[in-house]
Amino acid sequence: MLDPRRLSIHQVTLRQCSTPEFVAALARHRVPCTSLWRDKTREYGVEKTAQIIADNGIALSGYCFAGLITSPDRSEAATARDDVRRALDEAAALRAPCLVFVAGGVDPRDKNIADTRARALDGVAELISHARSVGVRIALEPLHPMICATRSVLSTLKLANEWCDRLDADDIVGIAVDTYAVWWDAEIAAEIARAGKRICSFHVSDWLADTQDLRVDRGMMGDGVIDLPALRRLVEAAGYAAYVEVEIFSQRNWWQRDPDEVIGVIKERVQTAV
Amino acid sequence: MLDPRRLSIHQVTLRQCSTPEFVAALARHRVPCTSLWRDKTREYGVEKTAQIIADNGIALSGYCFAGLITSPDRSEAATARDDVRRALDEAAALRAPCLVFVAGGVDPRDKNIADTRARALDGVAELISHARSVGVRIALEPLHPMICATRSVLSTLKLANEWCDRLDADDIVGIAVDTYAVWWDAEIAAEIARAGKRICSFHVSDWLADTQDLRVDRGMMGDGVIDLPALRRLVEAAGYAAYVEVEIFSQRNWWQRDPDEVIGVIKERVQTAV
Repeated sequence: MLDPRRLSIHQVTLRQCSTPEFVAALARHRVPCTSLWRDKTREYGVEKTAQIIADNGIALSGYCFAGLITSPDRSEAATARDDVRRALDEAAALRAPCLVFVAGGVDPRDKNIADTRARALDGVAELISHARSVGVRIALEPLHPMICATRSVLSTLKLANEWCDRLDADDIVGIAVDTYAVWWDAEIAAEIARAGKRICSFHVSDWLADTQDLRVDRGMMGDGVIDLPALRRLVEAAGYAAYVEVEIFSQRNWWQRDPDEVIGVIKERVQTAV
Repeated sequence: MLDPRRLSIHQVTLRQCSTPEFVAALARHRVPCTSLWRDKTREYGVEKTAQIIADNGIALSGYCFAGLITSPDRSEAATARDDVRRALDEAAALRAPCLVFVAGGVDPRDKNIADTRARALDGVAELISHARSVGVRIALEPLHPMICATRSVLSTLKLANEWCDRLDADDIVGIAVDTYAVWWDAEIAAEIARAGKRICSFHVSDWLADTQDLRVDRGMMGDGVIDLPALRRLVEAAGYAAYVEVEIFSQRNWWQRDPDEVIGVIKERVQTAV
């Protein structure tokens, strides 16, 4: 059983809602926590969003997302890092404990993926002082290898652990474990144990056998092939005791449904399938 | 420069052709080698295919594919292994040096992926004696993690090397390195070196930045973000000197084009982009 106080539903899971509609739906169903999404937050306004969240007594598990700092052009990369600093400021204003960080993909101008990864790691190192100054943890999120070209060259938890070893800043750089991104990994058990207290965010959804899109066809927990209870046991054995965060991108299904129905199914599935 | 005698074009790359049309196109363009695909071969007939290949002086780099032996049902798994034995017989009749082996995915009846991998490895072990008896190498092909659920729990070259270590049968079990499946892997250089002479097949295509399908949207070499020359250097440094095999599944582009055009582009791109 999952303590209902540990449920967080990411804003993107109900992309069909405006921010006020989303917050009202969470409050109506007594969902205690969310991770806000940046596009929605900026659209509604950071201060207004902070206010409506506080007024409804909803906690934040994180702020999603910023990053994409892998450009081989030095000026573009600097601009991208400045944008991450703004996102850290927004997260601080929202009182979110962490900013989910997405490294960036492979630029056709430089197909050397080792160099690309080195640039990303150097870029994270440059962001640490700002993160410390605003008190928001950078949550490095390994993403699925299928979006390595476009979104993230940080493709495994092992690599995230290696980056954390190199950064030596566990006080301010953590790791977001997204089950959808890492479930296939033969080394996942060992790397979750190694990550230990670095794990500051735990995302659940499911991998559908008939997945039709590389990004926006995630499944509801229980509808796919991921052994979610096993992954939850692993992160909890590693010391993670915070929120179970439901993050479902679903263009063809859950984004088309009534928010009350979606939340009802989530509340049931986190008890039966996670 | 690639020695033109090292070019192999997989039959699936010209899926729009019948077997006789395909063989005629290879002969017309003096492409010396192919890997035949099983569905086309069985449709045209194994003996007739062997004959037409021999009559046109075309070599075989392999036979694609068989496997899918991960069922948790013992009877289903035994049936699947019998089918692999038939595929080995077909490969022998065609005088193909290896059978490309695809492990199989995760069955919803058993989401434990470690158990699934153990079943696949045990299944390969059971196939070794038949492979030896017909003289066809089993080429374990790590496939991209995005098709882990449906096609292959063998998701990395590291895992393939671990399986080969466990099987201790390098004379008859090798590894197929498909650039499309492994390009994202942070450990690829070390694992290619470790694989060494196990590498019996090297497949090239490219990863398109705007990939729209998990299986049939591969790109022509040079049209995507994979550093193909770097990967070719790695396999050649590991001792691989056999065919460079062009394997492109492309529903929306190359499968729609005239075969002569496709082969012309391939012959140019293996010189400029691999």
